[in-house]
Amino acid sequence: MVQFQPNVLRKVATSEGISVTRLVQGIKDNKIILLGSKNHPIPPLAIGAGLRVKINANIGTSPDRISLKTELRKLQTAIEAGADTVMDLSTGGNLDKIRQAILNASSVPVGSVPIYQAAAVARQKHKSFVELKVKELLQVIEKHLSDGIDFVTVHCGITKQNVKSLIRAKRLTGVVSRGGSMIIEWMAYNRAENPYYEFYDEILSMAKEYRAVLSLGDGLRPGSLHDATDEPQILELLTIGELVERAKNASVGVMVEGPGHIPLNQIEANVLLAKAICAGAPFYVLGPLVTDISCGYDHIASAIGGALAAYYGADFLCYVTPSEHLGLPNTKDVYDGVIAAKIAAHAADIARGIKKAKEWDERLSFARAAMDWQKMIKFCLAPKIARAILTKNKVKLHEPCTMCGEYCAMKKFQTTYPILTQSAAGGKLTRKEK
Amino acid sequence: MVQFQPNVLRKVATSEGISVTRLVQGIKDNKIILLGSKNHPIPPLAIGAGLRVKINANIGTSPDRISLKTELRKLQTAIEAGADTVMDLSTGGNLDKIRQAILNASSVPVGSVPIYQAAAVARQKHKSFVELKVKELLQVIEKHLSDGIDFVTVHCGITKQNVKSLIRAKRLTGVVSRGGSMIIEWMAYNRAENPYYEFYDEILSMAKEYRAVLSLGDGLRPGSLHDATDEPQILELLTIGELVERAKNASVGVMVEGPGHIPLNQIEANVLLAKAICAGAPFYVLGPLVTDISCGYDHIASAIGGALAAYYGADFLCYVTPSEHLGLPNTKDVYDGVIAAKIAAHAADIARGIKKAKEWDERLSFARAAMDWQKMIKFCLAPKIARAILTKNKVKLHEPCTMCGEYCAMKKFQTTYPILTQSAAGGKLTRKEK
Repeated sequence: MVQFQPNVLRKVATSEGISVTRLVQGIKDNKIILLGSKNHPIPPLAIGAGLRVKINANIGTSPDRISLKTELRKLQTAIEAGADTVMDLSTGGNLDKIRQAILNASSVPVGSVPIYQAAAVARQKHKSFVELKVKELLQVIEKHLSDGIDFVTVHCGITKQNVKSLIRAKRLTGVVSRGGSMIIEWMAYNRAENPYYEFYDEILSMAKEYRAVLSLGDGLRPGSLHDATDEPQILELLTIGELVERAKNASVGVMVEGPGHIPLNQIEANVLLAKAICAGAPFYVLGPLVTDISCGYDHIASAIGGALAAYYGADFLCYVTPSEHLGLPNTKDVYDGVIAAKIAAHAADIARGIKKAKEWDERLSFARAAMDWQKMIKFCLAPKIARAILTKNKVKLHEPCTMCGEYCAMKKFQTTYPILTQSAAGGKLTRKEK
Repeated sequence: MVQFQPNVLRKVATSEGISVTRLVQGIKDNKIILLGSKNHPIPPLAIGAGLRVKINANIGTSPDRISLKTELRKLQTAIEAGADTVMDLSTGGNLDKIRQAILNASSVPVGSVPIYQAAAVARQKHKSFVELKVKELLQVIEKHLSDGIDFVTVHCGITKQNVKSLIRAKRLTGVVSRGGSMIIEWMAYNRAENPYYEFYDEILSMAKEYRAVLSLGDGLRPGSLHDATDEPQILELLTIGELVERAKNASVGVMVEGPGHIPLNQIEANVLLAKAICAGAPFYVLGPLVTDISCGYDHIASAIGGALAAYYGADFLCYVTPSEHLGLPNTKDVYDGVIAAKIAAHAADIARGIKKAKEWDERLSFARAAMDWQKMIKFCLAPKIARAILTKNKVKLHEPCTMCGEYCAMKKFQTTYPILTQSAAGGKLTRKEK
């Protein structure tokens, strides 16, 4: 039933610090998924309950910014900064060529949103996107999977019924999912059910054939705190719950996508709800952002929400960059976005009791107390950046930094400590010389 | 008993959206403090239960970096970015001159840590810091207060008894509070009790005279996750609890300082503990950082911890900048640090039900849905930065950004929405043209 070789499973289990039995049971229960397409020769990645929290970096062109070279540079930057997966969300240029180049260059699992391709197909055929046939909408998924994409976002939870609730909902920001808005447009013009819902079994068959994971997209996710945890969002989640069950019965790995924008006090409820409705399926959140007003610093609002979401059980965090809501991220944005998401994931790992995570911090703090800057940099999440700041500040090895200089508390305490212990033992004190 | 004029109290109450009665009762119960020295002509600032969460930016020279001009620029940057208070933590140069210049230039309350001055006094008198007399250690506090400092950090909770527990504690990072390490050094060399504990009543009298607030520093705070929530930290908190009671009896406003480095899963307990032990006194946290490994991005680790701490009841967040643990922050670090802390405070305000905070996000999201970039920028926390990103991306007013371009979900949904409502009403659909 589990489509991976025993030696591959062993490797994954070891790297996560769990037993193979637990890994296999997790996969069977769909509480853990393994990303690794039959057609993409990379080491598979496990995501889910009891494992290290993973993070994804979105890259890809937009209609206004098309450069394969730039996207490949973003890919390398994301991986170097610690992204566990990347998603190619290209919507501009030769999408097939870009996707294949990213797949070839990537050492980590690659995800995509095939519906973006549908718009390109329509353009090639000189018709409107809404004139595409159901078959054509399904073909783009197969195309991505056969290319070796490891996980695809499919907005199967948008149904006629759920869309109706959008009208009642009086949202501030309507629909903010690109794929979601495309499907709703297609449904509206064709007065038809969402083909990704209607032909879900066919999508499951395709995923199974290529050993790909489905990421059930939340096309109705809130795009502002005002719209968080409202009827359309929850109705779609309930539909996704059914779809998770069907995927499990078909032995297809499936994860659930979550919002978006959620106030701090609703994050716990959102995670617990998604986990309960979707029988513990891996939960993949975009952010969530805990405020709408942080433009230019949305990676920080997102790190706050992501850390909390992961602490309560989210398994996979999609990064948000400083350019979110403002433009396509550049390479520096990608780096900063990955580091922010890594901080969130790592903080949650520690809180969730992942031993390796805790030890990592202890190694750094040990080096910090010894003022061993070289070692400290080695254990930093972002060694490049930390080293640059130290160099700029001309900090010397084993000397305090320019923050406190001679008033360094750690250094002072290290010279005081022997006196304290001597004093505790009743020993004689020598007066410090000026 | 409350040392402010009724018209001042009215202004403060209005700006916080509470009644004067509630404000006055809060001050009497020491659940709210008002920052505004008799000698510093600024509008007083309220901090505490039921109010908007405030944030502080630390500025000031170090022995290695002495430039009044730079510090005054940091002051203006911090205020412009939204800092509610600043603390002058200068340890290098002419401390009196720097402090007075910052006080004169600041439109917000200014805090300080007088013990830093003691080192300078010792140097002037050509003796070692540990040779200073108790009187001299108390005089530096009076000097700061008479200059007009609105709140002073005094490490009164360090006692002989509490220091003993440091030896038992087997900490990874010892003492990381500059003031704390100085007092411990003084105590060790002089085999004496902490004068700030022993002569606490005199400090209370001084604070009362100048209408200043005492910020009871946590000199034994953990400097790494490993050391979080350990015996020295909690013993010091218990002592601080007693000192809060004594301040209340003396009608002196007092707040409690908190860590530092705390894992995500211990933040709630730390805040609730501090509030319980200190009878609901305003809680002022430094970060807390939820990981040790985020050098160069510590403002993000700190925003995560700060948001959560404030959500659980912390009232005042001290910012942490990207330069933390690496060097003295520059002006850009100050800006980024303030914005990160503001995001944390604002996210908590929304979660805590502050109406104005929620409305702020709604205004921005309304502008966002309308693609009204001018208005959106106006409602951003960091308008300068948001505008720069938009300009770089050549985004046009009322047009989507370069992230999605023509695939903008919000724009697409806005054109689909009329069809959806028509369809819901049973109206006829017109086919979209290519």
